[in-house]
Amino acid sequence: MIIDRLYESVEKKGHVCVGIDTDIEYIPKWVMDKNNSIEDAIFEYNKNIIDATLDIASCYKVQIAYYEALGISGLMVYKKTLEYIRNKKAIVIADIKRGDIAKTAEMYAKAHFEGDFESDFLTLNPYMGLDGIEPYLPYVKNKEKGLFLLVRTSNKGAEDIQYIDTKKEEKVYSVVGEKIQQIGNECMGSCGYSSIGGVVGCTHVEEGIKLRSDLNKMFFLIPGYGAQGGKAEDVALYLKEGNGGVVNSSRGILLAYKKVENGEKNYAQYAREEAIRMRDDILSKLNVNN
Amino acid sequence: MIIDRLYESVEKKGHVCVGIDTDIEYIPKWVMDKNNSIEDAIFEYNKNIIDATLDIASCYKVQIAYYEALGISGLMVYKKTLEYIRNKKAIVIADIKRGDIAKTAEMYAKAHFEGDFESDFLTLNPYMGLDGIEPYLPYVKNKEKGLFLLVRTSNKGAEDIQYIDTKKEEKVYSVVGEKIQQIGNECMGSCGYSSIGGVVGCTHVEEGIKLRSDLNKMFFLIPGYGAQGGKAEDVALYLKEGNGGVVNSSRGILLAYKKVENGEKNYAQYAREEAIRMRDDILSKLNVNN
Repeated sequence: MIIDRLYESVEKKGHVCVGIDTDIEYIPKWVMDKNNSIEDAIFEYNKNIIDATLDIASCYKVQIAYYEALGISGLMVYKKTLEYIRNKKAIVIADIKRGDIAKTAEMYAKAHFEGDFESDFLTLNPYMGLDGIEPYLPYVKNKEKGLFLLVRTSNKGAEDIQYIDTKKEEKVYSVVGEKIQQIGNECMGSCGYSSIGGVVGCTHVEEGIKLRSDLNKMFFLIPGYGAQGGKAEDVALYLKEGNGGVVNSSRGILLAYKKVENGEKNYAQYAREEAIRMRDDILSKLNVNN
Repeated sequence: MIIDRLYESVEKKGHVCVGIDTDIEYIPKWVMDKNNSIEDAIFEYNKNIIDATLDIASCYKVQIAYYEALGISGLMVYKKTLEYIRNKKAIVIADIKRGDIAKTAEMYAKAHFEGDFESDFLTLNPYMGLDGIEPYLPYVKNKEKGLFLLVRTSNKGAEDIQYIDTKKEEKVYSVVGEKIQQIGNECMGSCGYSSIGGVVGCTHVEEGIKLRSDLNKMFFLIPGYGAQGGKAEDVALYLKEGNGGVVNSSRGILLAYKKVENGEKNYAQYAREEAIRMRDDILSKLNVNN
């Protein structure tokens, strides 16, 4: 089960998931200038960030939207970036948030677990229903693949659907979390977590404690650290015995060089330093809680 | 407003939305054999289906997953198919069901309302929250673009989230529908509908009547006709005064040739005949209801 690989990676390297959500505006001018195309510049930038963080990152998350926005040539960089990470034997989460059913879901599973865009984990959106997950299960059970389903996000608009109070006095996200954990039972790793994990934003302190205890077999992908306002002490509530989740930072790491005067020359080095700082920040808060 | 164009197209041609969800298995062997690549064969097939239905289809819906499953070369066919439809001055809905927030949603808007994958309407998933729609609004308000948000689907798993009973004795999908209609008020066309429409599956008769009357400014994209079990009399409940929605059929039209002995030689002709039959089937039931 792929979740065991991710668990071990967290044991070894800590909780940092480096988000390779590369906006062309993040790329230093000198990198842009020395390349023949925007796409080459993005790939060089990604490659250097990955090389500089390989021993710190438990995994990478690549947000496909940034590449899709550049059309076909952008998706070619997306493909090359996934391949580069996988060739380094690192774990990659494709942040695609697809959500569909039946034959269409089958097509998405094929698109992102095989061929040009093959990755290790996918993020999915459950709104259409959990029958939409079935087409992914053969990959999870037999082909070392994993999923992270949206449970509860930390944006303001999360209240629109996820926070609706149900008749049974629960929140919608909590019903969703329970259902996903149930499906996850079919795909348990030996580490005690399922290869079907959940995306859980790191805000709202009390809820963090409840979610972690209700969904105790669910491995969390936790966005929202740093640039999005989440702190290490919040994040720590979603982790368990020093494992149980990975914490994503994209801009915080990719743009670390902007906090240093003339930092752009050594952007990858500053990304590394920020990843180390973040890793240690989280570990220090874990020691307090666990 | 793009919704006025779609409304007029329905007035003129009827309610059929032809779904160009081309699985390679749908393509007759002789078409596959005469082309140098799978991608060329798909494009030829799509082109012929589009040419044969141009005067019948109020619009086309292209399901990106079928193309994404073939990787980069599949997405090149997707691009060419969208361009072909738009060059014919027909309206195309990109069935992408993306759903994200902030900068990522901005990237998806750019990806599918500009550049390689430009289309007229997008389908979106609202689970993360309706703040995720904001990045699309400048396109809707100023650039003749439109949206269809998932409200209620007709698959079995829809009960998992969409049908949860809320504390206020509503269904989640009904809360979602109301919120979307409210945002839609900012983007009203002169036809009386908003350029922000809803995806509403055509099952459950009583609910159809209630949804149509609650969401009376919302234009519906209605999947589920034919191959998925929906009947014209069900569909008619979601339409209003002979307009108010388009009804998608993909397999029913694309595979019409399979119902005829040796039908594969004239697959486009049979697609046309099925589209005409479907159009007239829906119109006949509208006359009864309206």
